[in-house]
Formats: sequence, structure tokens, C-alpha cells
Amino acid sequence: MATVTGLFKRLLLGRARRSEELGETLLPKRLALPVFASDPLSSVAYATQEILLVLTLGGLAYVYVTPYLAAGVIGLMTVVVLSYRQVVYAYPSGGGSYEVVSTNLGPSAGLVVAAALLVDYVMTVAVSVASGVDNVISALPALAGHRVLLALCFVALLTAMNLRGVRESGRAFAAPTYLFVGAVLIMVGTGLIRYLMGDAPVAESARYGVEPTPGSAQLTGLALVMLVLRAFSSGCTALTGVEAISNGVPAFRRPKPRNAAATLAAMGAIAVAMFAGVTTLAIVAKVHIVQDPCRLIGLADCAGYTQRTVIAQLASSVFGGSSSVGFFVVQAATALVLILAANTAFNGFPLLASILAQDRYLPTQLHSRGDRLVYSNGILVLAVVAGALLFGFKADVTSLIHLYILGVFTSFTLSQTGMVRHWNRALRTDPDPARRRRCRLARVVNAAGALVTGLVLVIVLATKFLEGAWLAVLAAVVLWLMMRAIRRHYDAVAAELTVTDPRADLTPPPRVLALVLVSDVHKPTLRALAYARAFHPDRLQALTVDADRAATARLEEQWARLDTDIPLTVIDSPYREITGPVVEYVRHARRTSPRDVVGVFIPEYVVGRWWENLLHNQTALWLKSRLLFTPGVMVTSVPWQLTSSAHVRPTVRGAGAVRRGVPATGYGIRRPPRGARPGGGPGPGGGAPTPDRSP
Amino acid sequence: MATVTGLFKRLLLGRARRSEELGETLLPKRLALPVFASDPLSSVAYATQEILLVLTLGGLAYVYVTPYLAAGVIGLMTVVVLSYRQVVYAYPSGGGSYEVVSTNLGPSAGLVVAAALLVDYVMTVAVSVASGVDNVISALPALAGHRVLLALCFVALLTAMNLRGVRESGRAFAAPTYLFVGAVLIMVGTGLIRYLMGDAPVAESARYGVEPTPGSAQLTGLALVMLVLRAFSSGCTALTGVEAISNGVPAFRRPKPRNAAATLAAMGAIAVAMFAGVTTLAIVAKVHIVQDPCRLIGLADCAGYTQRTVIAQLASSVFGGSSSVGFFVVQAATALVLILAANTAFNGFPLLASILAQDRYLPTQLHSRGDRLVYSNGILVLAVVAGALLFGFKADVTSLIHLYILGVFTSFTLSQTGMVRHWNRALRTDPDPARRRRCRLARVVNAAGALVTGLVLVIVLATKFLEGAWLAVLAAVVLWLMMRAIRRHYDAVAAELTVTDPRADLTPPPRVLALVLVSDVHKPTLRALAYARAFHPDRLQALTVDADRAATARLEEQWARLDTDIPLTVIDSPYREITGPVVEYVRHARRTSPRDVVGVFIPEYVVGRWWENLLHNQTALWLKSRLLFTPGVMVTSVPWQLTSSAHVRPTVRGAGAVRRGVPATGYGIRRPPRGARPGGGPGPGGGAPTPDRSP
Repeated sequence: MATVTGLFKRLLLGRARRSEELGETLLPKRLALPVFASDPLSSVAYATQEILLVLTLGGLAYVYVTPYLAAGVIGLMTVVVLSYRQVVYAYPSGGGSYEVVSTNLGPSAGLVVAAALLVDYVMTVAVSVASGVDNVISALPALAGHRVLLALCFVALLTAMNLRGVRESGRAFAAPTYLFVGAVLIMVGTGLIRYLMGDAPVAESARYGVEPTPGSAQLTGLALVMLVLRAFSSGCTALTGVEAISNGVPAFRRPKPRNAAATLAAMGAIAVAMFAGVTTLAIVAKVHIVQDPCRLIGLADCAGYTQRTVIAQLASSVFGGSSSVGFFVVQAATALVLILAANTAFNGFPLLASILAQDRYLPTQLHSRGDRLVYSNGILVLAVVAGALLFGFKADVTSLIHLYILGVFTSFTLSQTGMVRHWNRALRTDPDPARRRRCRLARVVNAAGALVTGLVLVIVLATKFLEGAWLAVLAAVVLWLMMRAIRRHYDAVAAELTVTDPRADLTPPPRVLALVLVSDVHKPTLRALAYARAFHPDRLQALTVDADRAATARLEEQWARLDTDIPLTVIDSPYREITGPVVEYVRHARRTSPRDVVGVFIPEYVVGRWWENLLHNQTALWLKSRLLFTPGVMVTSVPWQLTSSAHVRPTVRGAGAVRRGVPATGYGIRRPPRGARPGGGPGPGGGAPTPDRSP
Repeated sequence: MATVTGLFKRLLLGRARRSEELGETLLPKRLALPVFASDPLSSVAYATQEILLVLTLGGLAYVYVTPYLAAGVIGLMTVVVLSYRQVVYAYPSGGGSYEVVSTNLGPSAGLVVAAALLVDYVMTVAVSVASGVDNVISALPALAGHRVLLALCFVALLTAMNLRGVRESGRAFAAPTYLFVGAVLIMVGTGLIRYLMGDAPVAESARYGVEPTPGSAQLTGLALVMLVLRAFSSGCTALTGVEAISNGVPAFRRPKPRNAAATLAAMGAIAVAMFAGVTTLAIVAKVHIVQDPCRLIGLADCAGYTQRTVIAQLASSVFGGSSSVGFFVVQAATALVLILAANTAFNGFPLLASILAQDRYLPTQLHSRGDRLVYSNGILVLAVVAGALLFGFKADVTSLIHLYILGVFTSFTLSQTGMVRHWNRALRTDPDPARRRRCRLARVVNAAGALVTGLVLVIVLATKFLEGAWLAVLAAVVLWLMMRAIRRHYDAVAAELTVTDPRADLTPPPRVLALVLVSDVHKPTLRALAYARAFHPDRLQALTVDADRAATARLEEQWARLDTDIPLTVIDSPYREITGPVVEYVRHARRTSPRDVVGVFIPEYVVGRWWENLLHNQTALWLKSRLLFTPGVMVTSVPWQLTSSAHVRPTVRGAGAVRRGVPATGYGIRRPPRGARPGGGPGPGGGAPTPDRSP
């Protein structure tokens, strides 16, 4: 059984990787860019559209604001990228915003960022996959009935690729991301050249006017500001995922901070170029996009009209219609890159979870690397939660999007506030005037960033809270409380386990009472008795529970025939249970001599097939788990391997290693213990002398 | 947690019962009758009807056969009851047909009976509950939409009552059964007196003629014989459950066989009286009942007509209409007794399963008595399987009934054949002429019974196999194969575990290598080291797996500061797993000196709340389960109880017993071991001297 699952695991994940290979999985910049930046880059596919969708609520009257808003987003993006470059240099261990905020604003604020980011990573997967599925379905309408299944398949695919390891997944994602970047930039370039040559592309929606929504026709004062801010905050979806690189620094090749900063800059430059290009082109081509197609003036059949995305309208107008090769390439790359954007979260979430686990805010299992040197448990948790969300929300983008980008802006605001503190501290200690000047400049950048992102956060909260964002807030709060509880638990355990007086703790108890549990005189029982004897306990008793008079009488008779000097003690059990009386007996023995230790030996026979376990009472298992709660007890299982268990044994990894030509000592001893031959040499001089035998 | 479930269990089941109370649950005859006989008695409610339903397939022409068929069923019932009286005396241990057949025809034939009966017990529950629900719904049409839920509720109710113990359930079932018997007998008596006084009751269907089904108008020869035999076999549903008393002998008060035989005779007499009375009354009152109401001649609206059962028609005609008190009482008692008939199976199934478990054909868990001295596991298995059937077949009687009564007749035929063999053997050895005469008579009775029941079995199989009985046959065959496989497994295990040379098996291994697994220097580790030392092993090593370089370096540093003479061995683990390298190391040590034993000490800390387990690696658990497959190993858990585990401890039954006023020594030692004070006295003279210290 174990071999079958093992084989399946190898087929799915590839061979296990040695710890020394860890260096190999580090990413060169050209692979790190698509791995960490597919999320912010892919958001170009909808950021411009989101701005236009809000502005056209007031008809075409306010579309003129678009370039200013785009400039604002670009400015914000620049500020954020510049700020995170500082973060990458100042905190290169991959903690990103979490580390910045924890260090500068305290652990509680850091946990807020962590909780917000964890929720947002989940949402990135859910939203990106759902949106990607939307685009796949737009291309292949036959799949429309299988939306949820398709989304879950994509999550499973991403999970499998990431479980195989970062480098492979980096390669798998590089081509589509670069294809998307290339296609969009060529589209923008072609369109702008055609514009400069007097042959401006014209979008299919350019001929329609837009009817304002009721009450939005002549906005003034605060209402206008609110509309513009809403449009601005919608455009800010372009900023999701910028965080990822600063969290992923440890995955970069050395020098890690410099490579990460360079990648961050490249990502920012590409994202700005694409976003600016697409927005310019949308203005040039007069793309008119609205939330409700029936507000398009000049459109006859608005109910049957499918509004195409901004990117689709631009590609169609630039490359000559929606059957051109160019249109097809842009659309395919867009759909693909949206799915891959989810991969950013598959890189970011496990890393952040691992750091939180190291800080003991999450279970330790999230900190250990799996067979393929990735944080397998984190990847699986992300996949399960995102899959559940996609299932619960039926992979519907509109429902999911309301839960999104809150976390990113919480993290931006807090981390940039933290960076301001960082500079303040630096200014207090650094006397060098040149560095002080740089610090002051950086502080201005970060302060501006904190202000703007804080403002966006407030707007996002105000406009989206009732539409679903409350769920994301609730999840983050619950996560925050849970992480604090986990940390408290670990701290309490660590405090309890700390060694204060090693000499006293290492002193063996004066006497050992060995109890061998007996239900029948058969080979496992005799082996347990023999093994217990080999330990030379001060007193050795066989113990049986009288749950069935006839069986006990038979046992006593067999025992007498055995002719051994080990006494058989019979304890009554009027309620026919085994565990209670044994535990009570052990406690009683401990009460009588509290400094001694009681060793309970349990003979067990081991079967090989799962169903065979159903045929045997699991009393030993129950008993062991109950005895573990009793102080001053050692519980020793003495296994007897039945023939059927033989086929289970070779599945230990060591055997496989031997077969693969790795010597068995691959697991051998690195440093043999003083004076002892490795693995149980015969000489009595080997190993440590036990205390009572040393002179 | 344990206390909450414990409390719930107590509320549901009542207090746990001591083994000495077993005598108290034995049944007096007046309670044994309703407990074991509600199934055969309740079948009076439909046996006559089943005969009429078949005969009227040929119109009213063959209804004249009814008294002869009824006489046949009564004769068969008499033969079966007489035969089972012999069984009860000859085999009083409760094995019933299973024991008779195993003893006389061999264990394979016995297993056939067992499998058939187990299937039939399940079917008894399913059919009786479904039929009972039908009657409940007839009385309360508002419940019609909740058929399956209602059936499952009844199963749950029966399960709970039976888990509380036989005696209580006997009391709960006595009143309705006696009410049913009384009501039916009064109805029959009243009807017959009215008939003798010239005022014969007339059934509501008496005025309708019956149109024969196509091809059944003028049956001759074989076809007529087949119709009559089918009607006869349908009437044989009256015999289901007669078996139960012979299986339930151990539940009777002493003298068990005599009381059981008397109860069997009483049951037979009552059943015969009721069946004969109902059939006579049905002929007198001219009840015309058909499978399809549209074959009733003289009925205007056959689609909207609900045909009432024979019992209902009789009660209505005798007591003066369907709003009379008499009608209501008969109908209510009938509905109730059908539900309670299922209880026969709840008594029979666990007993038979327990006997099969004792013979090692079923898992041992089915043999042990639960808290309330009943075979709880058998009761639960029956409830689950019957519940699944009711759910799967939507509690539809028509679908379920085809799977029924096959097992009963398999068991009748085989057990009566077995009894013939029994008498043959008795005749070979017994020289006494009077007893020989009795034996010969009994042999004739049993042989006739075997012949008739065998014939009925063939007819039932032939007429019902394709309608669903194949499923019951298949289930019995699978069960038969499974029970043989289980027995083979137990036999193989027993053979492997049998002690051949106790002296050799008891000889302790010459040397002990103790390995203490270390991952961190904390209190549990030091306690494990101290305890391991207390056992005076020949060699003692601390062992750590290097899955994380930094952590291992930290550990080695801490170890050096510990300043102990116990060497720390570091084993490499290039794939970062713990279990594989440790198992490989242990195996290597064993290969080097195969006669020695390796004791692996695992420090464990024990938490009290289930979720706390999620926060700690379950490496110890994995490791233990893997090491159990390695020969020559002892696995010792050295628990360290964290503060949070304290609240788990008092839930051991012993503590509760103390609170209930039972002295703590309720679990104490019955016979103290020679020369040792109970529970760990301090003197070194106590207990057995360990071998190497005795002179």
C-alpha cells in the first residue's frame, strides 16, 4: 500500500530532492520576474477597464479624467515600487511587509499585516483563477457548464506544479508571462504608431454614446470627488501582488537583495509601460465601456450584446478584427496569464506562512520543507482554502472581487508607515549628512505612500464593505486571533519544557517497577516478558485484567504450567473494561512510591493489511494513549511481527535509496559517538557506561 | 471531552452494569414470549392475506383451497415448533440452527445457516419496520412524506432500547404484543360467535367478484399445482422468526431449555390459534383481496380505491365499521407489533454474531458485552445495515419483501436435516427400546419437516429469485466467504503465536542497546534519558536526525553544555525525513548483533486539547508505527504531561467509581502476587528477582 502511494507521489512530484540541492532552486532574475510578477502584470488586463467602468457611470462627461487617474496610479505604483526597493534592501530575509511592520510598529501590527496578506493571497488565487476561467470560457463557450470544475482543475494543476518545486514552475510560467507582456507591448506600439501615422485604431464601442446613471449626470463637489476616487481605487487593482517580490527575496539568486530590487524595478517599469500604453490606446481608440450595456446610446439590442473587454476591443481594433492572429494571441495570452497570476500567491503564501510558523504564530508543520524542498503544507493549505472559496462562490468573479485588495492596501499602509518609523530611527542615529538627506527623501516617499494607500484603503473599505469585504475582514480578524492563540500556546509549552536544572532532570529514578500486560500465554507475551527482563527492572510483574472469569481462569492455569518466577497479578474489572483498571493500578503504584517509575510493557502483534486490524481489538492502542496521560510512566510496545506484516517493511525510504545505488550509509552516522562503533558494536566498552555500573 | 460523551452515553443507556448483574437480565417466560415471538405472531397480520393474494390470481375459483393451505401452514408450523423443541433441549447453548447444523452436517453447512440467518435478521428489521411504517402512515396520512425518516427513527429507537439491555426492552415490548394477541383473538371469537348465532360478519369486499388474470382462468395440472404451492409458500411468512427462541435460550431463566421449550410451545399455540382464526373468519366474512384492485368485479372507481388489509376488513366487519373502538384498537396494535417484530432480530442477531465471533468466524469485538451487558457491537452493526437497506430501498415493503424468508427456510431445511442425522447417531448408540421409539418418531417428524421446508425453499427461490432474492443470496454468499476468510486469518495468527518452547521464548536477549531520540534539549528529553538510564541498558546513546543543519548545530551546542556522558549520535537525512533514517539505523544495529534487542525511547509531550495536537509534529506517532514493523525492537514512549493535559486525567472510570461510593479498590487486586505488596512496595525483596541478579 505504502509503495503504491509512494509511486504515485513520485509520478506526481518527481524524485525527492536532497537538502544540498536547495541552492539549485534559487531563481535567476529572468525566471523570478514571471514567477513573482505575473499577478501585477496580469492586472493590466483589467485595471484600465475598472477605471473606465466607474467613470462612465456619469456618462462620457468625466472620461477626460482618465489620464490623470492613470497618472495617479502610475505615480502610486512608482512610489510603492520605490518603497519596496528600500524594504528589500533593509529586510532581505523575505518577511516583506510583515517583517517591516513587526520591527517598526510592533508584533501585533505585524500580525495584522500577516493576517491581511494571508487572506489576500487566498483571494488572489480565487479571483485570478475565476477570472482566468471566465476568459477560457469566453474563448471556448462549450465549457460554460463546467465553471467550478474547471476552476478546481486549475487550482489542482497549480498545486501540483508548485509541489514539484519553484524552479520548474518558474520555467512553466515564464513563457506565457513574457508572451503576454510582448503581445500587449506590440499591440500598444502598433496602435500608437498607427495613431502617429494618422491611421488611429477605432474601437468597436467608439460609435456608441453613454447615458449617465440616474443622479450622475451633473456631479458637483464631494460627489464628483467620490466618483473620481472610486475610479482611482478601482484602478489600484493594478497594484495587487507588488508585495510578492519583497516576500520572495530568499528565493532569488545571490546577491539576493540586489537581484530582488532589480526585478522589482523591472516589474514596475514593465507594468507602468503596459498600463500607460493600454490606457493611452484606450483613450485614442475611444473605448466606451459601461457596467450595463443598455446605457450605451446607439446600440439596438442591448440585452443580447456581449461587451468585450478593453484589451479585446483594443486588440481587435489594432490587429484588424477579431479573427486576426494578433487578436487571438493577445486574448490567449491574457487568459493564460490570469490563471498564472494565481501562481504568485502559490509562491508568496507558503513563504509567509513558513516565516509565521518560524515565529510560532502558525503550526510548525508549515515551516518544514517537503520532499521537493518546497513548503508543501503551505501550498496544500492555500489550495484547499482557495478551492473551497471557488466552490462556495461558484467561481463567480463578481462575488469574489469584493473580498479582494483590502489586504494589499492594509499591508501597504502599515508597511509604509513602518518605513517612516524606520527612517526616523535612522535619522536619530546617523550623523552623515549625505545619508541623512537620502533618508529624508525616502521618508517623504514613504509618508506620501502611506497617506495615499491609507486613503485608498479607506475608500475601498467604504465602497466594498457591505458588498462582501466584511467576509475578508472577518477572516483576517479570526486569523489574527488564532495566530495570537497559537503563539501563546507555543510560548506556554516552551516555558514548561525549559530545562532549569539539567543535573536533577537527568538523575534516573531510584527504582523501576516493570508491569507486563498479559491477556494470553502466546509468543508476543513471552517476548514482552523476556525483553522486560533484559532491562533488569527492580520488580517485574505480569498483570492481567479480569474482564471475563472463564478466560482469566484459563490464563491462570496456563501461567501455572509456564513455571516461571514472574508473578501474575489479576485485577478485577466489574465493568469489563481494560484501560481503566490498568491506569488505576499504575496510579496506585505511583502513589505508593512517587519517586519510582513504572514501565508498562504491552505485547502487540503487528499485522500487515489494514483490514486485519479490524479483526483485532485495539485495546493496546487505547491503553497506550490513556497511559500517556499518567505521570511517571513509561509505555513500552513490544511488537511481534506476524508473517503478513513482512510486505510492509521494505517500503522504508532507505531500501529505495539502496536500490537507487545510494549506499545504505546514506542515512548512516555523520559523527560516530565517542568510543562506540556505529550501529551497535558488541563490545561492552562501547557506548556510555550506565551510571550504576561505572566505578 | 471524554466526560461529555460519557455523560451522553449514560443518559442514553443508563448506568454501566457490573458483570455480576448478568443473572438479572435473564428473562421470565412471560417476557421472553413477546421479546422473541413478536415476529412470528405479527406475521398473522399478513400471512392469510398473502395466501389469498396468490389464490385470487385465478379469480374466486380456487379460494376454496384456502382452508387446506392454512391447514398445511398450521401443520408445517406444528412440525417446525415440535422440531425446534427438540433443538432447544438437545442444544441449549443458544446456537440454534447454526449449532445443530455445524454439529451434524459440518462447519461449512453451519456457516451457510449462519450467513442465511444473519441476512434474514437484517431483512426482518427492514421489512417489519417498513411494514410498520406503512401501517402508521395508513393511520396518520400526514406522515406520508417522511417514510424513510420515520423508518430510520424507528430503527434508532429500537437500537437505543436494545442497547439499554434485554430486560427493559422485554418490558417495553410485552404490552403491545399481548394487546395485539388479545385484540385479534377477541375479534376472531366475536366474529365466530356472531357466525354461530346466524349473524355472520360480512367483509366490505364480499360484494365484489374477482376477474382472473389472463391465463389463470382454467388452470389444470402442473399450473394449478404451482399456483397452489406459491400460495402455500406465501402463507409460510407466518413461520419467520420461529428460529429466534432456539437462538435465545441463554437469555431465559433457569431451567433455560425447559422454559424456552414451554415458550416455544406457547408461541406455536397462540400463532396457530390466531392464524386459524383469522383465516376462518376471512372465509366466513368472504374477504376478497387481490393484487390489483381493478380486477374486482363490481367496483366502479378502481384507481381511487384503497384496498384495506384482511385484518382491517375483518375488524371493521366484526366491530361495526371503521370508526368503532374495536377497529381502532386492532389496527393500532397491528401497526405497533409490526415495528416491534423487528425487535426479535435485535435479540437474535447480536446473539448469533456473538456465537460466530466466539467460533472466530466474525471479529472478536462482536463477542464482548458492552456497558449494559448486551452485545452492543452486534446491535449497532444490525442497526446500521438495516438502516442502510431501508434508506437504499426507500423503506418500500414491496421491494424489500422479495429478499425475505429465504434465510429462514435455508435454516429450517438444513437444521431439520441435521436433526435427522442427530437421531440416526442417537439410534446407533442408544439401546433403550422406549427411547429408541421416541427417537424414531422424532426422526419422522424432522424428516418430514426437512422435506416440506426444503420444498418451500425451492419454490420461494424459483418464484422470487429474479424479483430481488438474488441480492439476499449474494449477500449470504459474500458473508459466507468472508466468515471463512476471517476464520482462516484467526487460525493462522493463532498458529503463529502458539508457544512451542516457553523456556527459550522467555530467555531475555543478552544485551540491550538503548537509543533515546533527541530533537531538542528540553525537559521531556532529559526525562527520557533519565528513565532509559534507570533501565540499566548495556549501551545508551542519544540519537538525532539531521534534517535541518542549523537546528542540529544548535542541538550539538546545547548537548555539549549539558555535560553528560551519554554520547549524541547524529544521523544524516538528506531528504529531511525522520522516520526512514531512524528505522534504517535500528535495522543496521540489529544486523550487527542480531541476538540483542534495541530499545528506542521517544520523549513525547502530551497535550490535553485535541486542537493542540495539530500544533505539534506528529513525528513520534509515525515513528512508533513504523518501528513496530521492525523485528527485535522495543518502542518506549516517555510522556511528559503538559499542564493542559491535566483536565483529561480524571475521566478514567476509576475516579467516577470512587465518586459513586465504590471504593477505589474496586479495581484493586484480587490476588496479590507472591511476596509483593500490591502496587509497588519499596522492598527490593518484592516481586520476582530479575534473572541476572538471582544467585
